[in-house]
Amino acid sequence: MADRVATGDSLRRRVRNQLEPARARDGVSWLNRFLIGVILASVLVALLETEASVAAGREHLFRAAELVFAAVFTVEYGVRFWTAAEAGGWRARFRWMISPAAILDLVAILPAIFVAVAAPSYILRLARLLRILRVAKLGRFSRAWNLVAEAIASRRYELLLTFYGAVFIMIISATLLYIAEGQVQPEKFGSIPRALWWSVVTLTTIGYGDVYPETLLGRVFAAMTAVFGIGLIAAPTGILAAAFSDALQKQRDEKAGLDED
Amino acid sequence: MADRVATGDSLRRRVRNQLEPARARDGVSWLNRFLIGVILASVLVALLETEASVAAGREHLFRAAELVFAAVFTVEYGVRFWTAAEAGGWRARFRWMISPAAILDLVAILPAIFVAVAAPSYILRLARLLRILRVAKLGRFSRAWNLVAEAIASRRYELLLTFYGAVFIMIISATLLYIAEGQVQPEKFGSIPRALWWSVVTLTTIGYGDVYPETLLGRVFAAMTAVFGIGLIAAPTGILAAAFSDALQKQRDEKAGLDED
Amino acid sequence: MADRVATGDSLRRRVRNQLEPARARDGVSWLNRFLIGVILASVLVALLETEASVAAGREHLFRAAELVFAAVFTVEYGVRFWTAAEAGGWRARFRWMISPAAILDLVAILPAIFVAVAAPSYILRLARLLRILRVAKLGRFSRAWNLVAEAIASRRYELLLTFYGAVFIMIISATLLYIAEGQVQPEKFGSIPRALWWSVVTLTTIGYGDVYPETLLGRVFAAMTAVFGIGLIAAPTGILAAAFSDALQKQRDEKAGLDED
Amino acid sequence: MADRVATGDSLRRRVRNQLEPARARDGVSWLNRFLIGVILASVLVALLETEASVAAGREHLFRAAELVFAAVFTVEYGVRFWTAAEAGGWRARFRWMISPAAILDLVAILPAIFVAVAAPSYILRLARLLRILRVAKLGRFSRAWNLVAEAIASRRYELLLTFYGAVFIMIISATLLYIAEGQVQPEKFGSIPRALWWSVVTLTTIGYGDVYPETLLGRVFAAMTAVFGIGLIAAPTGILAAAFSDALQKQRDEKAGLDED
Repeated sequence: MADRVATGDSLRRRVRNQLEPARARDGVSWLNRFLIGVILASVLVALLETEASVAAGREHLFRAAELVFAAVFTVEYGVRFWTAAEAGGWRARFRWMISPAAILDLVAILPAIFVAVAAPSYILRLARLLRILRVAKLGRFSRAWNLVAEAIASRRYELLLTFYGAVFIMIISATLLYIAEGQVQPEKFGSIPRALWWSVVTLTTIGYGDVYPETLLGRVFAAMTAVFGIGLIAAPTGILAAAFSDALQKQRDEKAGLDED
Repeated sequence: MADRVATGDSLRRRVRNQLEPARARDGVSWLNRFLIGVILASVLVALLETEASVAAGREHLFRAAELVFAAVFTVEYGVRFWTAAEAGGWRARFRWMISPAAILDLVAILPAIFVAVAAPSYILRLARLLRILRVAKLGRFSRAWNLVAEAIASRRYELLLTFYGAVFIMIISATLLYIAEGQVQPEKFGSIPRALWWSVVTLTTIGYGDVYPETLLGRVFAAMTAVFGIGLIAAPTGILAAAFSDALQKQRDEKAGLDED
Repeated sequence: MADRVATGDSLRRRVRNQLEPARARDGVSWLNRFLIGVILASVLVALLETEASVAAGREHLFRAAELVFAAVFTVEYGVRFWTAAEAGGWRARFRWMISPAAILDLVAILPAIFVAVAAPSYILRLARLLRILRVAKLGRFSRAWNLVAEAIASRRYELLLTFYGAVFIMIISATLLYIAEGQVQPEKFGSIPRALWWSVVTLTTIGYGDVYPETLLGRVFAAMTAVFGIGLIAAPTGILAAAFSDALQKQRDEKAGLDED
Repeated sequence: MADRVATGDSLRRRVRNQLEPARARDGVSWLNRFLIGVILASVLVALLETEASVAAGREHLFRAAELVFAAVFTVEYGVRFWTAAEAGGWRARFRWMISPAAILDLVAILPAIFVAVAAPSYILRLARLLRILRVAKLGRFSRAWNLVAEAIASRRYELLLTFYGAVFIMIISATLLYIAEGQVQPEKFGSIPRALWWSVVTLTTIGYGDVYPETLLGRVFAAMTAVFGIGLIAAPTGILAAAFSDALQKQRDEKAGLDED
């Protein structure tokens, strides 16, 4: 009996090691490769289903695919629920259940239920969004999160500040353009909220070309805005560059500290 | 009597601690949260008032809101005036009054006066700009100013130089495009000042698409300008990145210095 | 006899030193200058041949040029084959033959064979692509590869992560725009794959202006996407900046280490 | 006599200290302020002269202004010629004469001669370009050149490499778009040289919107090109950021070294 439990534990542990990318010693395990493949296929199918020229006449195929994907995700959720206890019984299992990754796993199964019960179309529309959010499940498999997340988190105040600065410049430049162009192009600059669309498109240097100033004064204000737009890109880039430098330095220092011990 | 003064002082100090973000130990105080909310509401109302489809028929509502906001800002100014003495009597109060933040607070009240006395419309137009400038009052609440301001200030000569370099490249490329395209598109490249608009839109990589070269020579010049445009973004970004790195390093060194003491 | 071999070896070594940029002490050798010139001319001719207004009536000239270039590249391949043995006889020669640079050299000769035998036009079309790929042969002559390649390779996980993040944001924003604009502009936002074209053009801040949102909700989503677009550029730039800093630091440390010995 | 020479020397030295920005202890001297003003006015006048709506009927005014500016620049050249000997007699004067700054000063006088002798219009056109190049004279007055120039020069190989990489990607993506779109939009993608214009506009993220792909394959290639375009901006920015960091570090180390002595 003790033997069987031990074997069961052993199987559970082995499955868990297959599932957890951090525990795989050499590369991504075959199980995770399979899961990544299913996630990508599931998202791709959800994207293509919206294109009438692809989906027309193949509705049953898309429905079947959705149910297969959901079945895989349900089994995955069950197995993860089973192996979660490995880290310390039911407490660990409960901790896992309320983790964002587990909730995302659960939410990823939902759309199939709506598809299966043939819910009204506006619910199916929402379900489609959930199916596309499955792409977020891929986040679990990346190993480089730490450095990037740490770098961004360590400078979140400065990054927020540049964001506020950007909003400030946006509002001011929209007001200036509204004053300069409001009479000439009332459809596009006739109010500050309308001019804000121009601000966003210009400060991010996208420049679709649907709105642009035509008066001399408007162009002078726009040129000033455009130059600030460069700063708007330069400042967060500079902050992030410094933060990444810093995070790398810390990583190296910690490694050196471990080597010395 | 001495007791009452002490109590007064004590209330004044407590109010001041509520108002000064640097003195709040844990997060933003409830008073500052309220002020931030009023500022944001005030700016939002000023923005929306310019949109005819929102404001038409609701002029009295917008006027009332403006007077309420101004009342809050007047009380705020009065309280700040009162608590400014905390830092050292009338001298401190006077120092506060001529500080940029206090002047901004005063200016933020002005528009309501024009609204109340029903000033002529071109004054109200200017008043609207002042109402939107209230967004600058938010600057007081940010804690990340120091690092950003220090980084930019420490490299202001280099940043100015890249700005001059940008103006130089703008003028030269506008001249080249005027030579290449002036005959073909006289409306857009018929003079160097006109071609400058193209220069700005191209070097900042906005590219609205209202002006672009059509001749072979013009396109060759434009391609060269566009490549310089990348440098124009890369140089200030690189300078700022180095400056932020430097500022972070200093911060850490100072902290290490304090720890050693 | 031994004398002749020694002389032969000596010639082979001298030719090899002329060919290998790493062995040239002062600048680029005359032989390499000549080869760079031929490569550039060969690519330029291949580009111009596609322009009917240049090539019409000069087909025999372009064909002759192609055969001359191919002859030079064939001789180059032969000489490199000959001198490869300098590094250790036939083994070194074989190692050289399966190196990417040598395979590229061989592939660069292929197009001329198709031109010479007057292959069918769709093969000539492919041959044209190969002729333009000759520009990759220039890679051999650069000395700055190491730092750039090392910097990019050292942070490949983080760069890949920002790439995944970009794809994630692209899919989500395309879905949002499909929901907001799908009914209004079915031709442009009528399915998520169609909206993806808008996503790419917006997140990279290109903004051709062929597709852009027209509804209020669409513009709000687009503005949020545009701001993320800045992060999309800032993050890899910051990562690369830190990586280059790191690579430079290592270079200096190694140099200092050598100086100490 | 010796007295007069000494006085002459003394005057010459004082004038020279006024002219050389590096020798001015506190800010920019009044003489340099005047010269900067004249240069800016001269360039502004040259720009405005091309705009018919400003210049029409004021030709004599513009001509007079040009002659006044040229007179100032001639006197400036003479004085610099005179004071150059301060650094070591005629040898120093000759060294100064063949320096780029002095040649630029001489070239800046030329246009006025053509204006004075009423040269044919195509010469005046060239003269106009020279008048605008006067803006380069401002370069002498900046103190931040060193750091920027040193940072760029120290990484010139890597920057050149990213430039070559950009040209490589441009040619390859133009070839791909020519293959994908050549048949559909022959006017815009009918040859590789034509498609190159699209490449430049896309990779620099300008995106005027005059040329863009319309086929599915073309859009897939364009999306790949656009993502590389981000790398194209990220790489030089990262290199420059590291270079500026490095240059700042050196500056500080040198300063620390001087402090220790």
